[in-house]
Amino acid sequence: MIIDCHGHFTTAPPGLAEFHEALLAPGADIAALSVAGPRGLSEEQVREAIEPEQLRLQRERGIDLTLFSPQASAMAHHRGDPKVSAAWTRACNDLIHQVSRLYPDRFAPVCQLPQSPQAAPRECVSELRRCVEELGFVGCNLNPDPSGGHWTGAPITDRSWYPLYEAMVELDVPAMIHVSGSCNPNFHTTGGYYLAADTTVFMTLLSSRLFRDFPTLRLILPHGGGAVPYHWGRYRGLAQELGYPPLEESVLDNLWFDTCLYGYQGVRLLTEVVPVENILFGSEMIGAVRGIDPVSGHAYDDTRRYVEAAPRLDEGGRAAIYAGNALRVYPRLARRTADEPVGSGR
Amino acid sequence: MIIDCHGHFTTAPPGLAEFHEALLAPGADIAALSVAGPRGLSEEQVREAIEPEQLRLQRERGIDLTLFSPQASAMAHHRGDPKVSAAWTRACNDLIHQVSRLYPDRFAPVCQLPQSPQAAPRECVSELRRCVEELGFVGCNLNPDPSGGHWTGAPITDRSWYPLYEAMVELDVPAMIHVSGSCNPNFHTTGGYYLAADTTVFMTLLSSRLFRDFPTLRLILPHGGGAVPYHWGRYRGLAQELGYPPLEESVLDNLWFDTCLYGYQGVRLLTEVVPVENILFGSEMIGAVRGIDPVSGHAYDDTRRYVEAAPRLDEGGRAAIYAGNALRVYPRLARRTADEPVGSGR
Repeated sequence: MIIDCHGHFTTAPPGLAEFHEALLAPGADIAALSVAGPRGLSEEQVREAIEPEQLRLQRERGIDLTLFSPQASAMAHHRGDPKVSAAWTRACNDLIHQVSRLYPDRFAPVCQLPQSPQAAPRECVSELRRCVEELGFVGCNLNPDPSGGHWTGAPITDRSWYPLYEAMVELDVPAMIHVSGSCNPNFHTTGGYYLAADTTVFMTLLSSRLFRDFPTLRLILPHGGGAVPYHWGRYRGLAQELGYPPLEESVLDNLWFDTCLYGYQGVRLLTEVVPVENILFGSEMIGAVRGIDPVSGHAYDDTRRYVEAAPRLDEGGRAAIYAGNALRVYPRLARRTADEPVGSGR
Repeated sequence: MIIDCHGHFTTAPPGLAEFHEALLAPGADIAALSVAGPRGLSEEQVREAIEPEQLRLQRERGIDLTLFSPQASAMAHHRGDPKVSAAWTRACNDLIHQVSRLYPDRFAPVCQLPQSPQAAPRECVSELRRCVEELGFVGCNLNPDPSGGHWTGAPITDRSWYPLYEAMVELDVPAMIHVSGSCNPNFHTTGGYYLAADTTVFMTLLSSRLFRDFPTLRLILPHGGGAVPYHWGRYRGLAQELGYPPLEESVLDNLWFDTCLYGYQGVRLLTEVVPVENILFGSEMIGAVRGIDPVSGHAYDDTRRYVEAAPRLDEGGRAAIYAGNALRVYPRLARRTADEPVGSGR
């Protein structure tokens, strides 16, 4: 079984983005728009948005199940006020729920949170509860910089974030740490901001007491952990220098890295420096890099090929990365897949 | 011959930092302080600050020459106003000049620039000229975010930076892109900010026309290029996706990566994905990570060991990384070392 922990609905029907623009229009009646909801998301339209690309590639690459969340770059927590963010988030999550109901054996739902630079993280708890308790979501995406590249908020280890972590722990759901689109010209969204955020968040976590305060909190660093595994020695040395426990004791009970690296050498490095228990298979498909690598002749984001080729992995290690670890990190996924055997539907 | 392209004077006598604090004190008379200069920087005091650590380690590790610049985290361009930055920068550069005169065969001087969030980059040109033309400096460090982690300025590809690049091209000196200390709690200086900056700057360069406008401009991305080589496939794919030329054509005539990676796997990856002509030996010694790796039994920042062990490098490749590339990137270093043969005495 192969579970892709990192998929976004980047091919959603255009009605979704139109709904966002309507919410953001001057003088928009947010309440009325929220009641009406986005147009153009009929079952047929959603199937047409999923099947020719996401589902086709998933099948072609032998991926059984994708942890599927709204398009990350479109979360846009910096746009509009908290009411816009709440209405937009609800619509995005409802669409993901719709996909997961249409293809229950192919997509497990992961929600976006109604974050805003103008709202405290605790304001996200009710939407998280709705998604998990009412709609069967198994995890969430948490934006460490809702300001969109200006980094004006408190770091994610600040106590203002704790109510959200309390809810995550109670609901037994993990979060993937994932920024959204950048509105700062110093950060290109998919080529700079994503990786910069993954990297700096790791050090913020390492130098905090977050995991001592929440020993069962589980976070995923996407995009192969940004720069972190490549600089594993730097982090081992910094922990030593600053008097922190070794990484195994300080962060690795609570933190996982995905395999969203678009080359063999990156995945080989990841699987050689990070313990196999801390790696989740991911492809970020369909994401920022959709082309064919002219050197290999295969899609850059067909990350399974790199995992297959990684020389240090044995069969058990690969099985852990492909599915075993994800089922531990996402216990609600494990219960969900136990209830609905993979392959039982379409 | 082995040239370390990345060394900072992190063990400077305390009189230097005291001078900075005096400049920053409320009501400080910047002009009078500048005339007086820092105290406690006699030849003997400088020798005592260099010999027991920097020079000893350099010799122990078989490094012939270090491109030596002021402590990066202490540049602190965000502290005080442009006048403070100018006086502080001048003092730091004068000290580096003093070191390079005391040990001309061991240290080649690289300057800090008097940047400030309140001043245009062109304001740095006169100090760059002073350092290069009067004091024999061979390069400079350029801070892409003088705001100290708030990223409030224009990206380094903005035209407001062009007067500085014009001067660099005219003087034939490269710049290492290097942020200073962070004053934003979202960025730990050495564990988050440095690597995030290296990474996002690469994408900013890739998506700009800077190197078309300055075909002979030369920039170095330190710390192994942040996350970039680890994500080489992502960048190759993004260039392809966004319609840019391949990396070889768009950035690799103008951009180099150092080997400041504190583990074998990182250096192996770097030397396997980045062309050998684009790699400069560096250790960042004495820097953020000073300890001994308990696994290897050697200093984390003894990066030469990793270069020696990198399997893809042949003798010619290692020689290019150790010295040949640096002599091309820093032509004034080449002239300087030709004038003063290495090993000729102190």
